[in-house]
Amino acid sequence: MAISSDLGDLRRTHYSSELSEGMDGQDVTVMGWLLTVRGHGSITFATICDRDGEVPIVAKKGGECPDEVREALSSLKAHSSVAVRGTLRASPKAPRGFEVVPAELRIFSRVQKIPPFEPVAKTVKNIDTRLEARPIDLRRSVLQHTFKMRSRILRAVRDYFEREGFIEINTPKIISSATEGGAALFSIFYYDKPAFLAQSPQLYKEQLTMSFEKVFEIAPIFRAEASRTPRHLSEAISIDLEEAFVDYNDVMDRIASLVRESADAARSYLDGAKEVAGGDVPLAVPEIPDTIPRHTYGSLVDRLQGAGAKTQWGDDLYPSDLKRLGLDGFYFIVDWPLGPKPFYVKESKGGSGDAGGEQRQRTSESFDLMCGELEISSGSTRIERREDLESRMRAKGMNVDSFEYHLGAFDYGAPPHAGCGIGLERLLMALTGTANIRDATFYPRDVDRLVP
Amino acid sequence: MAISSDLGDLRRTHYSSELSEGMDGQDVTVMGWLLTVRGHGSITFATICDRDGEVPIVAKKGGECPDEVREALSSLKAHSSVAVRGTLRASPKAPRGFEVVPAELRIFSRVQKIPPFEPVAKTVKNIDTRLEARPIDLRRSVLQHTFKMRSRILRAVRDYFEREGFIEINTPKIISSATEGGAALFSIFYYDKPAFLAQSPQLYKEQLTMSFEKVFEIAPIFRAEASRTPRHLSEAISIDLEEAFVDYNDVMDRIASLVRESADAARSYLDGAKEVAGGDVPLAVPEIPDTIPRHTYGSLVDRLQGAGAKTQWGDDLYPSDLKRLGLDGFYFIVDWPLGPKPFYVKESKGGSGDAGGEQRQRTSESFDLMCGELEISSGSTRIERREDLESRMRAKGMNVDSFEYHLGAFDYGAPPHAGCGIGLERLLMALTGTANIRDATFYPRDVDRLVP
Repeated sequence: MAISSDLGDLRRTHYSSELSEGMDGQDVTVMGWLLTVRGHGSITFATICDRDGEVPIVAKKGGECPDEVREALSSLKAHSSVAVRGTLRASPKAPRGFEVVPAELRIFSRVQKIPPFEPVAKTVKNIDTRLEARPIDLRRSVLQHTFKMRSRILRAVRDYFEREGFIEINTPKIISSATEGGAALFSIFYYDKPAFLAQSPQLYKEQLTMSFEKVFEIAPIFRAEASRTPRHLSEAISIDLEEAFVDYNDVMDRIASLVRESADAARSYLDGAKEVAGGDVPLAVPEIPDTIPRHTYGSLVDRLQGAGAKTQWGDDLYPSDLKRLGLDGFYFIVDWPLGPKPFYVKESKGGSGDAGGEQRQRTSESFDLMCGELEISSGSTRIERREDLESRMRAKGMNVDSFEYHLGAFDYGAPPHAGCGIGLERLLMALTGTANIRDATFYPRDVDRLVP
Repeated sequence: MAISSDLGDLRRTHYSSELSEGMDGQDVTVMGWLLTVRGHGSITFATICDRDGEVPIVAKKGGECPDEVREALSSLKAHSSVAVRGTLRASPKAPRGFEVVPAELRIFSRVQKIPPFEPVAKTVKNIDTRLEARPIDLRRSVLQHTFKMRSRILRAVRDYFEREGFIEINTPKIISSATEGGAALFSIFYYDKPAFLAQSPQLYKEQLTMSFEKVFEIAPIFRAEASRTPRHLSEAISIDLEEAFVDYNDVMDRIASLVRESADAARSYLDGAKEVAGGDVPLAVPEIPDTIPRHTYGSLVDRLQGAGAKTQWGDDLYPSDLKRLGLDGFYFIVDWPLGPKPFYVKESKGGSGDAGGEQRQRTSESFDLMCGELEISSGSTRIERREDLESRMRAKGMNVDSFEYHLGAFDYGAPPHAGCGIGLERLLMALTGTANIRDATFYPRDVDRLVP
């Protein structure tokens, strides 16, 4: 039967990338979704899209293709899921030098609804329109490349951890108390107990340096921040690392390596994709300098004040401030004021504070990795002694007792340690030039969006 | 100063595994936690444990080691976090042919509390005792090996997916409705909306085959099952794969490869670890047969009935049933009854049901991967057409409208697809012989346990 609707025993023989004019006359089976169909009376042109690219299909009346197949093909709408078994024919007129002439067609799923945008649309104005039809939005070329690049970056990150002797961990996402001692947590009913979704694996990854020394986790984190910005998600993926017997300077060195290797992986993906697509890939990976600059918090406050800003020591640095200073590309801001930092962040020893002059206030061994105005990562040296943790908690007005499950670990001797969390979606934004964080994840969650 | 308490600029020069008697006379800095300390008046023996193994420390009165260092060392308790800078001395009497004579000691954290078990304990009777002191429990040799093996297995699994052209995805863990249409979900307050924690990435991974064809995700899943057994967790890691243009037979082939490569990775880790530890690693990896046997559900029911059991067609198969049949090692149970299967599971075509005779009832293109009585994975061919999904949902009494966010995707043409989820902790149990699933994860969550 030349037309049917079930996969049965038919399997793809080639991806689009595996076809070439040199295979003239060969029997091939291709599968995918229809990008375009155009019937001109006695001839039908179609394009099937698969994971790797496009396959041109040509069905002529009176040719090798059965009439019923040509007619069925021309009746289909874009996005339909199909398989074509047929003969590859070299064709100098075709963009890639060949086309496939169908002998058999399988129609797995017909399109029931007019899609809200064209599959070849380079941009679609309203992101909500796209998110409502995310399964076909993700078929668009720019998102295909973004997410394939994301997969490669994750691979590069894990390669780095593997090579450097880190152990992969998983820590619980359902927790009994707030890590950072505060707000922005989602509440959950855990059987008969109140519980929360973890904002970070912080306390667990710290504990695990006691037994595994160097650990990493790549997993979801949850933040109940009602921010409507292009850089906040309520559910995101965090690349966390934590290491014993090092301080925040060592961690910054690691981050610099991770960013460089991620960029290399992204660039290598793009080079390959451009070769296949003939240069038409609308993404670009920035160059990463050999040394990522480190600016102390104090020096930036000085510069802001010098430029007439009202910023005071202790204030946060806002995107508008960083823009004002013309900070661009990747850079670290180090040695933040101690006060606002979480209880587990270590205070700087004398001299490690402001590079620009006397140390005006207590600073911490902490850093943010920025790309322009976008915060990508935050990290620090952590406190390894229980009494120091408790005194910081009390200074912050936290309930020490509710953290006994964590503080108890420090009774058994914790090593000095340091670490950071890197926002995967934000790293991807910086490496691909993606403007909205919702396009750096598959199904974004924010204050307004719980579906699809 | 020969004794201090801060890491400062001191860094480890060697891991224990990098030291050997050939380095006689060399200055080394080692760091870790104290496994043992024994003072005999004028001589103190200590063992420092790091990520790779043990370093013997010997401090003699009147030798190279300053008295104050020897005394401070002998005052320490096991588990304390320390660094020793000193000289490596070849010593034929020492187990590995060398020892380190300290010149300088740093004491980062002193132990404040008597640990509830010895760090060298091979077994500890009460698992709750261990879980309450998990950071030091994880220092015990058997758990060190289990979790390092776990990290290697994850690596092998991802290598397989990479090689086979799968894209890594992440799907939302906060969802608006129940995937399997039912119970066992944790409820959550999502801003002003009710929501749930995802039991599986099922619907999202299915949708993503429309754009990426072959996808995988390794991420937490959440099940509110109040089961108190050695094989249930409320939060676990699921290895999910989903693939377009294949059926459940192809997926079983993939699982067989994944299990084989995971076992190879585990075995290769064990071989290396045994070399370092001199054979003393209490874990063993089973042989995986070239072909993992496939038993139809129907044939097992026939065998049970033949053995006098009361099992009826349509009943679940319980561990006791499988034990009765003497099923051992890895095997698949295929072609389960359709009725109890989730709405997205595809019905078998005629002839694919019971191999033992006529098809007595409707079966599904589904399988479970078992290891003895332990279910490791569950998978199936999925339905690709909206009308078929809806009719299955209605037959199961589900609210079709509340799944519009998912069903809507099928209006745009979904490919035939199939997939499975593999429980990482259960796979690890099967590959290491770990008896309790709580020791196949770092910080288990169950109906009774939310901390640490």
